Amino acid sequence: MQQLIERIRKDGVGIGTEIVKVDSFLNHQVDTALTRQIGEEFARLFRDSGATKVLTVEASGIPAAFAAAAALGDLPMVFAKKMAPNTMIDGAYTAPVRSFTKGTLATVRVAKDFISADDRILIIDDFLASGEAAIGLLDIVRQAGAKCVGIGAVVEKAFQGGSKRLEKLGYRVESLAVVTSINDGNINFKTE
Amino acid sequence: MQQLIERIRKDGVGIGTEIVKVDSFLNHQVDTALTRQIGEEFARLFRDSGATKVLTVEASGIPAAFAAAAALGDLPMVFAKKMAPNTMIDGAYTAPVRSFTKGTLATVRVAKDFISADDRILIIDDFLASGEAAIGLLDIVRQAGAKCVGIGAVVEKAFQGGSKRLEKLGYRVESLAVVTSINDGNINFKTE
Repeated sequence: MQQLIERIRKDGVGIGTEIVKVDSFLNHQVDTALTRQIGEEFARLFRDSGATKVLTVEASGIPAAFAAAAALGDLPMVFAKKMAPNTMIDGAYTAPVRSFTKGTLATVRVAKDFISADDRILIIDDFLASGEAAIGLLDIVRQAGAKCVGIGAVVEKAFQGGSKRLEKLGYRVESLAVVTSINDGNINFKTE
Repeated sequence: MQQLIERIRKDGVGIGTEIVKVDSFLNHQVDTALTRQIGEEFARLFRDSGATKVLTVEASGIPAAFAAAAALGDLPMVFAKKMAPNTMIDGAYTAPVRSFTKGTLATVRVAKDFISADDRILIIDDFLASGEAAIGLLDIVRQAGAKCVGIGAVVEKAFQGGSKRLEKLGYRVESLAVVTSINDGNINFKTE
């Protein structure tokens, strides 16, 4: 998605060799117009997937997942939670997820009511790095007996191997901006 | 907002005397069409506020805040974070917030880059209970030297006193559904 790549070039910050800081428009401050366009692009890519529901994990995946779900004809969007609120009383599917940027291990959970065996799940997240978050969400989809019809990431850090890992498992992965390396503050992208 | 009240009557669950469970359409599974209408309603209410930015706190405030910011002419939306990611390196405004439903005390933070002294901030959240989250966000707005032009909640639990507390401080508060009591599973609303 050229517009996104240009925005990352303009406002993204490369830190060290592994971090792309995009918190001025994607995952802390959110550019709502750009995010709606991101949602439209995911909808274009996954229009024929037959998705019945969009799944993400709180918190920074929510804007893109919401925009994608809205653009796919107002599908329901479910965000997996990292803590169990006292209103989650009816049982949940859980899976462990390691966060690369926070250095933490979290348990993500989705109430059993909100994924059923006949759901076709589109997973959307802001970042795809090693694929840990997607693997956790896929585990939840599997526990529910549902099918994952695709995985979409706004920004993929290809050098961390997540998309290869997920494609080897047989999933379709679409990333709107693919970062191949970060050096001396420069962010380099895969070009088609 | 009559449509929201009807949805809560239909799909919300009253638990004990204090909890309104709306996770099937508002804060775990998200009805994207309803949420966009919620955003439109906030935009109608706050159209003349001169808001330059919408502020919420992760995670469950994000869909409504995103929808409101989009409906207000694609304003930027900022969500305060509950953990400091390793990409937050340039300093942040912080404030303590107690969560009623999770029973936890969290520090919320917003990177200093994303609120400036000339911002007019509209605070949006999914729930308004005792007002703790809004008080924390107001503290951050104050630290930035910005002005809060209004506080919007999707669901207010009026019996927990948050809106009175905020109005006493001089803020305009708009709630789309005002719950006055919860008894024997019944959810009772303020009617105009």
